[in-house]
Amino acid sequence: MNKLNDKPGLIVVSGGMDSVTMLYDYADQIGLGVSFDYGSKHNAKEIPFAKLHCERLGIKHITIPLKFINEYFRSSLLSNSDEDIPEGAYAEDNMSSTVVPFRNGIMLSIAAGIAESYDLKEVYIANHFGDHSIYPDCRASFIRPMKEALQEGTSNSVKLMAPYTGWSKADIAKRGVELGIDYRETWSCYKGEEKPCGKCGTCIERKEALEAAGIFDMF
Amino acid sequence: MNKLNDKPGLIVVSGGMDSVTMLYDYADQIGLGVSFDYGSKHNAKEIPFAKLHCERLGIKHITIPLKFINEYFRSSLLSNSDEDIPEGAYAEDNMSSTVVPFRNGIMLSIAAGIAESYDLKEVYIANHFGDHSIYPDCRASFIRPMKEALQEGTSNSVKLMAPYTGWSKADIAKRGVELGIDYRETWSCYKGEEKPCGKCGTCIERKEALEAAGIFDMF
Repeated sequence: MNKLNDKPGLIVVSGGMDSVTMLYDYADQIGLGVSFDYGSKHNAKEIPFAKLHCERLGIKHITIPLKFINEYFRSSLLSNSDEDIPEGAYAEDNMSSTVVPFRNGIMLSIAAGIAESYDLKEVYIANHFGDHSIYPDCRASFIRPMKEALQEGTSNSVKLMAPYTGWSKADIAKRGVELGIDYRETWSCYKGEEKPCGKCGTCIERKEALEAAGIFDMF
Repeated sequence: MNKLNDKPGLIVVSGGMDSVTMLYDYADQIGLGVSFDYGSKHNAKEIPFAKLHCERLGIKHITIPLKFINEYFRSSLLSNSDEDIPEGAYAEDNMSSTVVPFRNGIMLSIAAGIAESYDLKEVYIANHFGDHSIYPDCRASFIRPMKEALQEGTSNSVKLMAPYTGWSKADIAKRGVELGIDYRETWSCYKGEEKPCGKCGTCIERKEALEAAGIFDMF
């Protein structure tokens, strides 16, 4: 049951710059794209891009709703939070409210279970070095034991692939330029309003990364 | 927000023998009980017992629905599966269809995120040595890296507590007798029918463990 094609990989794809770049970068390895709707203010803006790029590449895409996160988790990123998304460049003191606790652990664990069910052997995730200062579950020190947990805890020894762990967001944007990605077909802004705010940490980080890659008009 | 009491622990509690025993064993450490309804044939029979015991101990209890598991996962344990629950004693070849892939990884990851959101520092799970031959995510070789992943991937360094990892189910039953637990107020049978079938692996294992603890009438 549940056979997709002969490609061994599942990718966790949000529809943001990083995961869309990885999707194109590793498209020849990917059999299934999985997005998670965890009730953030910007999920509704980004997930359609995840779906669009998977469809364009002929990769099956599914969205997993995680309604319990909005109900029980504390984070300014969530649509039911009383807190506003902070503005200004990424830094521990102003962006830490946007942490969704152990989000990558949750997404990777569910991805591992889906991979087993579809006979897929690899799970790709596009965490990168720029995330590391604020988000503990983006760091190499998390990825390493989580990789071992997936391998040991699955019957097929599912392999966690996080090839951008040591990359900056500018490195990712440069790779995206090589791949011909149009970043207007991705979404970053945490506020999730009609247009990107340009003021939150992720908007500022996106702009800096794109400019480092020579792109000045893809906001 | 979300403060419960001064007890530091969250327990993953199914309503089966093992987790109910751990609930009483570590009750003085537990601030929150969490059950997961992942669509198994027996969730509806076991979760009410989890709730009952938490309430009796004055511990807040919540149930997290994981509907995507029944939709996308492959396991004879699930209510939407075409496969029947196998009968006969636990052994790799007849019970492997009951594996829900990476279930413990998924439950522990979500539990870690909830723990962070409620300022809890510890997550308890009642995996034990008897599970190890069939279920890869019950083994010490999984628990060790998963413990490190929780610690590294959370802001509060949430600690994974799995004190029964090296115990047999008979050891757990003996501890339960010391604690005065009435095992009629727990549920094991995977079939989830009105009464336990007495024939599936988990029924047979339960009976053997209870008999080893001197209990012959608590089916």
